Amino acid sequence: MTRLEVAADDLFGLHNLPYGVYSVPGQEPRLATRYGDYVVDLALLLGDPDDPVLAAPSLNPLLAQGHARWVEVRTAITQALRGDLPEHAVHAVHDLGAVTLHLPVEVADYVDFYASEHHAANLGRLFRPDNPEPLLPNWRHLPVGYHGRSASIVVSGTDIVRPCGQRASDTGPVFGPSTRLDIEAEIGFVVGTGNPMGEPIAVEAAERHLFGVVLFNDWSARDIQAWEYVPLGPNLGKSFASTISPWVVPMLALEAARVPTPVQEPAVLPYLAMQPHPWGLDIDLEVEWNGEVVSRPPYAAMYWSPAQMLAHLTVNGAPTRSGDLFASGTVSGPAKEQRGAFIELTWGGREPVTVAGARRTFLEDGDEVVLRATAPGPDGTRIGFGEARGRITPAKPRS
Amino acid sequence: MTRLEVAADDLFGLHNLPYGVYSVPGQEPRLATRYGDYVVDLALLLGDPDDPVLAAPSLNPLLAQGHARWVEVRTAITQALRGDLPEHAVHAVHDLGAVTLHLPVEVADYVDFYASEHHAANLGRLFRPDNPEPLLPNWRHLPVGYHGRSASIVVSGTDIVRPCGQRASDTGPVFGPSTRLDIEAEIGFVVGTGNPMGEPIAVEAAERHLFGVVLFNDWSARDIQAWEYVPLGPNLGKSFASTISPWVVPMLALEAARVPTPVQEPAVLPYLAMQPHPWGLDIDLEVEWNGEVVSRPPYAAMYWSPAQMLAHLTVNGAPTRSGDLFASGTVSGPAKEQRGAFIELTWGGREPVTVAGARRTFLEDGDEVVLRATAPGPDGTRIGFGEARGRITPAKPRS
Repeated sequence: MTRLEVAADDLFGLHNLPYGVYSVPGQEPRLATRYGDYVVDLALLLGDPDDPVLAAPSLNPLLAQGHARWVEVRTAITQALRGDLPEHAVHAVHDLGAVTLHLPVEVADYVDFYASEHHAANLGRLFRPDNPEPLLPNWRHLPVGYHGRSASIVVSGTDIVRPCGQRASDTGPVFGPSTRLDIEAEIGFVVGTGNPMGEPIAVEAAERHLFGVVLFNDWSARDIQAWEYVPLGPNLGKSFASTISPWVVPMLALEAARVPTPVQEPAVLPYLAMQPHPWGLDIDLEVEWNGEVVSRPPYAAMYWSPAQMLAHLTVNGAPTRSGDLFASGTVSGPAKEQRGAFIELTWGGREPVTVAGARRTFLEDGDEVVLRATAPGPDGTRIGFGEARGRITPAKPRS
Repeated sequence: MTRLEVAADDLFGLHNLPYGVYSVPGQEPRLATRYGDYVVDLALLLGDPDDPVLAAPSLNPLLAQGHARWVEVRTAITQALRGDLPEHAVHAVHDLGAVTLHLPVEVADYVDFYASEHHAANLGRLFRPDNPEPLLPNWRHLPVGYHGRSASIVVSGTDIVRPCGQRASDTGPVFGPSTRLDIEAEIGFVVGTGNPMGEPIAVEAAERHLFGVVLFNDWSARDIQAWEYVPLGPNLGKSFASTISPWVVPMLALEAARVPTPVQEPAVLPYLAMQPHPWGLDIDLEVEWNGEVVSRPPYAAMYWSPAQMLAHLTVNGAPTRSGDLFASGTVSGPAKEQRGAFIELTWGGREPVTVAGARRTFLEDGDEVVLRATAPGPDGTRIGFGEARGRITPAKPRS
């Protein structure tokens, strides 16, 4: 009989218990939870090693089982880890450093929003400096968003190859490696149960559909994006890679992190208004660039809530599926040191910042960026989200 | 012993043999080909009723097997249908009217392009009337496109519920059923084998990656789209539904339809230039509205080829997967009666057209639109594409 010893105030204590997918050499990927620095196989822990849902290679089957089952599984995990481990769980436990972590969900449709007022206003000031109103007319009325490429969502630790593409120059468009490679520090939301076509998810029902949260780095090639994006939006400037953290922190763990969203003025239309529970999330992000923290974006400042994003996404009858992902857009706070993208932090590259002793604007080959975050848990604890880490490798020449 | 009698010049003769997925009551969906007005079960026809690839419920496994296998299967089908049917194929044959047709592919990522010069220029004239140049600066340099929602791609015959959403008004945004519901007559391309992340598909290699072609109606709510689309592109105005034809016509059947694409001036960048084989497709589309043909868009006039679209889509290293779909964007020719969207045909709603005796601009509840197309086959034959049909049903009130 063993008991796993994890401090009550560990970022991955019993109050967190995020979900992920791990493998050890010679075995297929399976679901796990993280407890302290242990990775614990779910199906082995709960006594049915071959359970098709709990031993699945992605969270999708568990997501599809719905909210009541998510509560039940979380309760069972908590009970199993609280006391002495049962005999059948002896092979369930691995050290974090001894496993490979995989994408936790199979993503079908992925949408990226633009939900930070500070981010949208900063980009407005950068790109439309003559306009006295930095926000576009639609911005306060709907959560603006666009669909992105789900195939290029990768798990933390995957190298990011500098993308090639077209960018504008004084002599017309040229092709080559991006020269303005950037990050966007975001939060991603995992859809637990979706909606059939034609049956929107009301904002007040989002609670039962949203499963959990990941860290999300929406790598962005600003030069490619600037040349391509009118009139149909970003495409190649974003579609080369997005990095997510390997752990999905369930909404069930984030009750103590719920805070009111900022007052929305003018009032939003009724289909976006009914939020019986506070839907802001007091998540403190941290952007590390080559070992140095350069920004601390506060998620609590976000204008649009995830419930509003999901309600908007489906209000025209569009269907969603278990495992769909939508991301918040860059999280930026009001202060300079709270900006979640380097284009804002360096004001379009015109105001370099000092990173590990060097003056820097956009990403260079070999640079590494790590997103981290914590949020309040119960009883003064904090919840950890793990990390979304990526290193830039040189562009590949066309073969 | 039976021989299926189909005229040599039938639109679905031996020169066509498209792929689809059918079911009969009480049985799971399976792959089939269409021969004349027969639907022929692939696995039963080819003698292995339980073949996991040929009896699959979608084309995806066959797509993943690659170009050489596509040639092999097509040859085997042709040989089996040419003579007397073997004994084991007796249960393979159904009348077209006796089966249900399903989505032929499981679509992961879906991208919609904007590849018709006439369509892009018409929209430029409609939305930017003061600008002497109707095309935006990037349009002749890259195939502009955006990602769409794959979950809302439905098969021909599925009713289309009028979407609700936000639109602008003189007194600010209002919510309600779309009042400017439109179509876009397009061709969709099915990716057969994709590319791993970081390994672009060169334009000269597209031949081996592209599997086939479907008809595609990208239903569009112009009022929702107009209010939402700056700066991140279309979202809710498009994501409620797209209709595809149930039959994927393989590129292997379209050799006689290949024609040169229009001369591209200015010259495109090298990564878009190497097209050893003519990559235009001489497909004649037809738009039927309430039983009356209102437009005949010529695909041969399209500026950007599918090979260029696929090369562009992946040049930044973005991965694609078997079953991915990309669509051409509205097909419009130079003449008014060749326009593939009603916003163009009715010049923004200002010039109504007469449809079945009534003056009409955008779609009304109960309207039905059918896309059809044919293309040259070998020896003077024509290739049929089936149809992409949809009827508008009234918006649902919010429950």
